[in-house]
Formats: sequence, C-alpha cells, structure tokens
Amino acid sequence: MTSSATKPATGTVTGLMRDISGVGTDTRRGGYSRPVFSNAETELRSWFIEQAGRRGLDVMTDQNGIIWAWWDTTTGTRKDAVVTGSHLDSVPGGGEYDGPLGVASALVAVDILKNRGVRPRKPLAIAIFPEEEGSRFGVACLGSRLLTGALDPNKARKLKDADGNTYADVAAANGQDPRFIGADHKTLQQLGMFVELHVEQGRGLIDLRQPVAIGSSILGHGRWKLTVSGQGNHAGTTLMKDRKDPMIAAAKIMIGIRDTARNYKDARATVGRLQPVPGGTNVIASRVDMWIDVRHPRDEITAALVESIHLNAQVIAAEENCAVTFGVESLSPTVHFDTGLRDRLRTLLPAAPVLATGAGHDAGVLAGHIPTAMLFVRNPTGISHSPEELVDDADAEAGAQALADILAGLLGEARKIG
Amino acid sequence: MTSSATKPATGTVTGLMRDISGVGTDTRRGGYSRPVFSNAETELRSWFIEQAGRRGLDVMTDQNGIIWAWWDTTTGTRKDAVVTGSHLDSVPGGGEYDGPLGVASALVAVDILKNRGVRPRKPLAIAIFPEEEGSRFGVACLGSRLLTGALDPNKARKLKDADGNTYADVAAANGQDPRFIGADHKTLQQLGMFVELHVEQGRGLIDLRQPVAIGSSILGHGRWKLTVSGQGNHAGTTLMKDRKDPMIAAAKIMIGIRDTARNYKDARATVGRLQPVPGGTNVIASRVDMWIDVRHPRDEITAALVESIHLNAQVIAAEENCAVTFGVESLSPTVHFDTGLRDRLRTLLPAAPVLATGAGHDAGVLAGHIPTAMLFVRNPTGISHSPEELVDDADAEAGAQALADILAGLLGEARKIG
Repeated sequence: MTSSATKPATGTVTGLMRDISGVGTDTRRGGYSRPVFSNAETELRSWFIEQAGRRGLDVMTDQNGIIWAWWDTTTGTRKDAVVTGSHLDSVPGGGEYDGPLGVASALVAVDILKNRGVRPRKPLAIAIFPEEEGSRFGVACLGSRLLTGALDPNKARKLKDADGNTYADVAAANGQDPRFIGADHKTLQQLGMFVELHVEQGRGLIDLRQPVAIGSSILGHGRWKLTVSGQGNHAGTTLMKDRKDPMIAAAKIMIGIRDTARNYKDARATVGRLQPVPGGTNVIASRVDMWIDVRHPRDEITAALVESIHLNAQVIAAEENCAVTFGVESLSPTVHFDTGLRDRLRTLLPAAPVLATGAGHDAGVLAGHIPTAMLFVRNPTGISHSPEELVDDADAEAGAQALADILAGLLGEARKIG
Repeated sequence: MTSSATKPATGTVTGLMRDISGVGTDTRRGGYSRPVFSNAETELRSWFIEQAGRRGLDVMTDQNGIIWAWWDTTTGTRKDAVVTGSHLDSVPGGGEYDGPLGVASALVAVDILKNRGVRPRKPLAIAIFPEEEGSRFGVACLGSRLLTGALDPNKARKLKDADGNTYADVAAANGQDPRFIGADHKTLQQLGMFVELHVEQGRGLIDLRQPVAIGSSILGHGRWKLTVSGQGNHAGTTLMKDRKDPMIAAAKIMIGIRDTARNYKDARATVGRLQPVPGGTNVIASRVDMWIDVRHPRDEITAALVESIHLNAQVIAAEENCAVTFGVESLSPTVHFDTGLRDRLRTLLPAAPVLATGAGHDAGVLAGHIPTAMLFVRNPTGISHSPEELVDDADAEAGAQALADILAGLLGEARKIG
C-alpha cells in the first residue's frame, strides 16, 4: 500500500497521445494545426486540466496563460520546486509529438512516481507554456518570455496574428486579463529547476541507437521579418521592363539567404513563410512579406550572417527597383544548459547520450533563470514540424520512465513509503 | 417632353462611384477586396439592382449568376439586343474602377439616352458578370464562360476557393441552384452585340492625351498552377545540406519565369500568388503552390513560353531534390474584336484612338459568339489591380457620354421623340 490517496492506474504515454489524436488535425496541410488559443489548443488545455485533476494535482492558470499543475507534498510555501512540462500549441501542419509528448510524459511520470510510492520532499509542477512555436503571434516561447520578463508586455499586447487580432484581444477573449501579463517574480521564486522532455527533432538518437538523450545546448536562433516593396500593377498590361516586382526581388533574396547560410559552417537559414500582397494571380504584388529563421551555435556568427542577408537584400531590391525593410522579431542566444544539473541527469540515466539541439524550447528561456535540462526521445523519421514526425510506442514509454527516474532523483532524498 | 415614364434625373458616374466607395475596402492590402459572393460583392449586386430598378429596368439574375437589367422598348420577344455592362468583383486589394466604372457608366448612359428622348428600336441590356477576375475560384470570366458554354459546368461546380468551399456550395448559399449552371443558348440568342466600357489598365491614353479609346484586341492569356513538393522539416534541426526545400526551387523557378518572358518580345509572365505549405516561420515548407499568369499576342508563343517554363521548373526542382506538378487553370487565346462593329464605333466616336489591351475581360469571352467591342477610359496612373488605379472625374463622365453616343447609334435607327 502507499500513502497516496489519489493513486490512479498508471497511464501510458501512447494512451494519452491517442486521447488527443483527433484534436486539431489539419486536412489541408496534413498533421496538426493547433495555434495558441485556437479551438484545438484550448481543447488540449482543457484536456490537460482534466488529466491533472484526475491525478489530484492542484491546477491554476497564471496571468501569462501558463498552466501550472502542482503536486504538493510539503507544507508551507512552495519553493525549490522541480518543474517539468512542455507546450500544447503546434506549428501549422505540424507533427503529433512536438509539445504534447512532453506533457503526456509528465502526466505519466507522476503516475509512475505515485505507483512507486515516491513521496517527494519538494513540490513538483507540470507547466504548460502557451505559444511556444510563435506560430500565431510571431514570437516563439511567448509564455516563458513573459514569465521571465524577457518580453516587454507592452510589446506583447500589440503582437498581431495573421488576421490582425492583437495578443491582448485574443488573451482577453480567452479569459486572461492582458493588463496583468509580464514578469512574474512570485512564480519564478517558487521554481528550483526545470526539465523538459521533447521529441527529438533531428537524427541524433537514430544514429546512436538510443531511445532517450540528455540535452546539452540549444542553438542560438532568431526570426527576422523582411518586407520587399515594389509597385502593384496589372499582370497583363504591365510590360516586363516597366515592372517593380517584389516577388522577383524576394526570390533572389531567398536564394541569397540559402547561399549565405551555406557559407557558414553549422548555420541554418530558412524562409518557410512568405506572403505576397495582395496575392492575386493576375496582379503583380505590391509587397512581399517574408520571415527568416536563422540559427548558429555562435551568436556573433548569427549576427554576421543576418547582417549579410540584410545587405544582400538591399542590393537585390535596388536592382529590381524595390525597397526593403528589415527587423528582428525575436532573438535567442545559444543556451548551454546548467552543467551541474546535466551531470546529475547523467548519473540518473547513465545509458543516455548527451545531445545538442537546433530547435528552440521554453527550456532555453528558463535556463537564464533556473537550472534547466532537457530529455529528447528518439524520432525514427528524424523529421519534425511536419506530419512525418514520429515516436515509436516503446520509446514514448521509455521516455516517461526516464523522466520519472530523473524526477524521483531530483525531488530530493525521495523516500519510498509503503 | 419625352415619352419615358421613368425618366430619372441624370446620374453622374462620379456620383454613383461615390455611393459604393465604402463597400469592400481592404484596410490590410489597401484598395478594395470584393471577391464574388463576398459580402462586399453581394452588396454591390444589390446596389446595382436597386439602381436599375430606379431607372425602370427589368432586372433578373440568371442561372449563372449574371444580372441582366433590360430596357425593353419593343414588344414581342427580346432579340438582337445591344448589351453593355461589366463586373463588380475585384482582385484582392484592387482598384476602385476595374469593373464598377463600366457598370456605373452603363447606368448613366441609360440616363443620358432617356434624357435625350432616345427611344431605342432594339432592347438594351446592362449585364453584370460574376467572378470576372477569377480571384476567388481561379477561373477568370467564370460567368461569361458558363453562359457561352466555354466552361464545363461539372468542372465549375467543383472549383474551390482558398477556404476549400466549392463554387457549387457558395452559389447555392447565394440563392443559385448549381444544378442549372452552364451554357444558356436562350439568353445568348437574345443578344445582338456587346460593348464593355472599362478603365484602361495601362498608359495608352496617357500617351495619346485622349480620355476614351476603342478596343481592338485582348492579349491571349492563361493561368497555370505549379506545385513544388519537397520535404517539410524543422528549420532549426535540419542541416542546409540535408534539405529538400521547395521554397528555394520556387524562388529559382520565379526568376526563370521572368527571364524566359523577357526573351519573348511582348510577353508578360507573372507570379503574384504563392503559398508555402504549411507556411510556418520555423518550418521548412513541404510544398509551395504558385500560380503563373502568362500572356502574349500570339497563342503559339504563349504555348512555347509556358512549355519552356514547365521544362525549366522540372530541371530546377530536380536540382533541389524536389518535384513539380503543373497544370493549366484557364486559357484564352488572343481575341480580335469584330472589325465591323469597331468601324461603326469609330464613326460614332471619331476622336477616339484604337488600342489593344493586355487585360482579360468578359468581352473577350463573348467575342466568340456575338460582335463585341470595348471602350477604355483613361487611367492617369497607368496602374491597375492596385489601389493606385485612378480615373479623373471629367474622364469618367466623358466615358459615359461616349458610351451613350455609341449605344444611341447601335440601338438602330434610334429616333428622338419630343
């Protein structure tokens, strides 16, 4: 017998993932589209709250839209908490596991700990961060950036989605008071460390033939918006020689971005989102908006690469009688996770290799404030941000077991009761 | 005194244009977005029906969504009718005059004829054609193509807008029975000739310093859809060398299209609409859909140019480890307007120069069935399909006067009563 009054049957990660597999499917793009505060993401938030409640966790949503599900086994104020969790929003047409795997694994890890009779000496929390992907309002890790004060709430309130809705309005429509978003020292002071489990978004674990890895670092990354302005006109009546076509300039700029990135070892630069305005078949665009995602382990090289892209864009735009504006939307330096915490994880999971990732995560934002670590679970396709992202069932359960082992260790002098 | 019982005060084109200047404004793109069967276009249709009713015209909407406003001054069956009119839909972010100028001018021309006491010996009709721009369902001149049988109604019913709604469903929601769309010989047999007044979409009349021109021909044009498929993946974790990025292929293809068009004198080729799928900033696209508008006076050169674009796209896609699919969406050969009708117009408007146009029009579709002509009204910016499209007030009224003069002549042995 155990002392837990709320002991549930142990859930499985695959079972929980199956529960939500019908939410936010995107028939046009394939995969899932679950932008923050969409019906799909809201349904997942409700699902999580219900699952946390079943486990006897104390759930609240804070002023930044972050859901916290607390397992309190100590009396007095919450402090030095061990936090795990991830996000429920997705990129457009994204995979099934990016975000939800970490959430489902956290719930199952709690089940495993309870079934083992572990009674933590520190509070444990599962956190769900909104807008990790930045796919709706453009700033990735919006929730954790607000929490930590990395994002000015005045700027956040004015962020707009593709339909022109502000973050303030959308948050308000979803029960948050946008006046109160921003740095939350009271919550931050309760947190002792953060461990995020996530599907691997590359091929590291395939090559190493291991189900689970410990994260070492997150590649520095940023997003820039580049707008090319030309002269909108009729596609039939405007001679080729008379055109100021921003699509041609945008095309040359995209090729330039790729070529520039190839010149820097370990750099990645991507244009995955581009919008001609007005966007009619028989209309020469007046303007093209494009977003550039740039990443490199060394922040000074990211900066040099972006500067080179900007200069090149100006030259190309001038050639095409167009003009460019260029601005940063978000910027995150390379994050090296806390080495002390990493070494504890290596002790707890001796078989797991240590891997860097090129993908951004809320863990990267929190790493500036508390010791932070990540676990990656093998993705047999090596593909992410795509419907082809995959996790094998056995690996999913192995990930939750690994997370439970780590949490048991980190919860400090955990003792078995029973 | 006149014999007309419904004589209105003469309207002005600028007055009518002002009436509708608030309908369908697009704050994001600028200008107007009035896709067929949108709230904006529906409001304009109602406005037209009300204006035609005020003038005592007999209004009906046919099975293809074309509105006909008849001025019957003869008894018996309608035949050999003189038809004028244009369209009310717009490209996204289009100008104020493209379409509505011809509609407003037709209404004012009726006023002028009535005020002059002209009593036509043939019926006159004002026709409003839906989806002239093809900006919602992809096929330009959808209404006139259905009327004349140039478009298979089975194909038309299945056309989809960007939200995935079929033409059949949208038509049904707007009071049309989609089972009955298609060739309408009964209506066609009533028509004797068609004269469409339209804002000029180039600089011909600026250079000639004339307010109004007579159309000679419409440049052959077509639309093709090209899809480049690659491998969707994460923008941060996927090395540059491992990518199959369809955006890069699309960029190279766009530059190739421009360069190819430049190699053919008088050719125009444009990519104004392009959509990366899924379209996330931190996502390498899995697919890019792009639409190509190609025009040339000689249809065999259009065909050669398109073939060259397609071959070049295949080569580029292969270089980038991507694949392309390519298909025609619509194709209209160069139309030379009826020379007999044109010569009559030249007699009626001796000062007007004769100009070709690169823009497509319903007049080009009808020209295969009845004698057809066009009038162009000067556009002082020379820009169209853009908020910068313009017509000076004096030129707008001169256009309606010219249309009235032509209609009076064409209505046959018109006699003044009074």
